[in-house]
Amino acid sequence: MHRSRIGVLLIDHPAGSYDAAAAFWAGVTGTRRSADTTISDDDPYEPLRPLPGTVKLELQRTGAGTPPRVHLDIETDDVPAEVARVEALGARVATRHEGWAVMEDPGGMLFCVVPVQTGADFAAHATTWP
Amino acid sequence: MHRSRIGVLLIDHPAGSYDAAAAFWAGVTGTRRSADTTISDDDPYEPLRPLPGTVKLELQRTGAGTPPRVHLDIETDDVPAEVARVEALGARVATRHEGWAVMEDPGGMLFCVVPVQTGADFAAHATTWP
Repeated sequence: MHRSRIGVLLIDHPAGSYDAAAAFWAGVTGTRRSADTTISDDDPYEPLRPLPGTVKLELQRTGAGTPPRVHLDIETDDVPAEVARVEALGARVATRHEGWAVMEDPGGMLFCVVPVQTGADFAAHATTWP
Repeated sequence: MHRSRIGVLLIDHPAGSYDAAAAFWAGVTGTRRSADTTISDDDPYEPLRPLPGTVKLELQRTGAGTPPRVHLDIETDDVPAEVARVEALGARVATRHEGWAVMEDPGGMLFCVVPVQTGADFAAHATTWP
């Protein structure tokens, strides 16, 4: 017998977009980056604030030609305000839908901003932005 | 003031690899798929077992030419046993490292199998496989 779980989520960016993307995701998650963190080819990792509470996991069947991928949904109680917040951090809207948006981070990676999906876990674990 | 969190993780596969990938990730997470779930272009989503407990979030600076992406790490107390389990579900080893492995799901999406990263959260929330 052995045990396992999906326990770590990594946001990968090549060197050319790493700095902008790292600053962006630190801002999105409210992570204060450590001045002591040194990224090297031998140790190319940098921690962000972990994700507390239960995170939903879903499959999506996408259109032909779409690459297989994992994408993140940011859930929020105010989609326009959150879109504006992440735009100010460096994201851009790719496609705007009724009540939610597909966006790209500064390295061109897709994510979405959506209404609250997790109920009690959102109430317990969401970050309040001024 | 508004609130937000990263609350949903989506595994996207195009129609050509969706069925194999969906069966794979259901097996990886121990999700019993519902016979009532119907996937359509209007509602292309299918739930998997949610991820309980705190999930680590990290940035990784990858090599030039690597696409920006999110990837999942499966943490385990027995890497060879977990690699064999997910191989039996349809994954293949892309590169084998000392103590961990980069793997691909049936649709060619990259993920890793790594030793335990989350300590108490692993102990509390990992699934035991026979």
